[in-house]
Amino acid sequence: MSAALVKPVLYSYFRSSCSWRVRIALALKGIAYDQEPVNLLKDGGQQFSTEFQVVNPMQQVPALKIDGVTLSQSLAIIQYLEETRPNPRLLPQDLKKRAQARMISDHIVSGIQPLQNLSFLKQVGGEKKLEWAQGSIARGFQALEQILQHTAGRYCIGDEVSIADLCLVPQVYNAERFKVDLAPYPTITRINKALLELEAFQVSHPCRQPDTPAELRA
Amino acid sequence: MSAALVKPVLYSYFRSSCSWRVRIALALKGIAYDQEPVNLLKDGGQQFSTEFQVVNPMQQVPALKIDGVTLSQSLAIIQYLEETRPNPRLLPQDLKKRAQARMISDHIVSGIQPLQNLSFLKQVGGEKKLEWAQGSIARGFQALEQILQHTAGRYCIGDEVSIADLCLVPQVYNAERFKVDLAPYPTITRINKALLELEAFQVSHPCRQPDTPAELRA
Repeated sequence: MSAALVKPVLYSYFRSSCSWRVRIALALKGIAYDQEPVNLLKDGGQQFSTEFQVVNPMQQVPALKIDGVTLSQSLAIIQYLEETRPNPRLLPQDLKKRAQARMISDHIVSGIQPLQNLSFLKQVGGEKKLEWAQGSIARGFQALEQILQHTAGRYCIGDEVSIADLCLVPQVYNAERFKVDLAPYPTITRINKALLELEAFQVSHPCRQPDTPAELRA
Repeated sequence: MSAALVKPVLYSYFRSSCSWRVRIALALKGIAYDQEPVNLLKDGGQQFSTEFQVVNPMQQVPALKIDGVTLSQSLAIIQYLEETRPNPRLLPQDLKKRAQARMISDHIVSGIQPLQNLSFLKQVGGEKKLEWAQGSIARGFQALEQILQHTAGRYCIGDEVSIADLCLVPQVYNAERFKVDLAPYPTITRINKALLELEAFQVSHPCRQPDTPAELRA
């Protein structure tokens, strides 16, 4: 069977915000795929298993087996999907807007998420965890709120869903988990709400995945 | 004067690894630019000044004023340069190799750098700083060394310089500053050495910038 005919396999964890970004892209582009759950908490973290290290030496989800290769890093995966399955597009056509979409994505992916993710907070340890997570997200959201004043329409960049939106919604979900006060960020909150009305953001939601525990399903 | 005729301005700090990535891209593509130094240590960090916040609400370098817009986030800037000034290309033509180049870049930019940068280490504080930085870089390099076994030729992706190389060299520079033992990473070390032979990596080096202090110049 040719690589293109094999269904892609997404290694994912229901609550991983990086995995959710990729699930939204797959849903928006209408790409059928199978999920292989990797439980980041069970067995000391299944991402550290010898089997999974062969899949992704970075020992992280998501990883996507597609077209005969295995890719990791959410933005790299999403941009590969964009270049091989361009419809609907997730990067604006206008080059300056494309740059802004990537700028917002990078701000969330490298400026906020790494300072509040699970493996990082484990290292911080103890009582400081919540404080750290809240501080990192609040600092990041302060900048993001200002940037969005210049770029946003209905969504992060004008009125078309872009890669920036795929990063925003899972980050707001994390902010809510860490009980960050979202009142100072009306633009972020408004865009998040508009995006959550779209089917692709709903079917990919952490509360609806094959590995979502029964008590968290919705 | 039309925006395209105005020389781009790079807000940069000589020792910032994220700034260096962009300086390499500008050098490789032969784009003339002016530098506006932002001292991350002086005055409690000039990136936090009211003036600079107007330039970049993220309060970080690099930022690039170009074509009438101001962009931040190194990978977003480099990809904008790639899309507007495509020669020489920094993303491989082959789509799977492009994905691998972005994967390695993202691994460094979001998986390693944020956990060893200045503002982060200031929060960690005290004696733990060096240990944190070393641990973050070592964990990231272990994965990177494995990935490069599959992708590298003379450089990170085959024999052509790519965006991944622009991320690699500044990260190795940071590793050396933090006295990380590089012996376990022969592929990283070999590629870094080959890249440092190229003029674009030399002219953009932290030891040769307008804001490099005299005692660190080389």
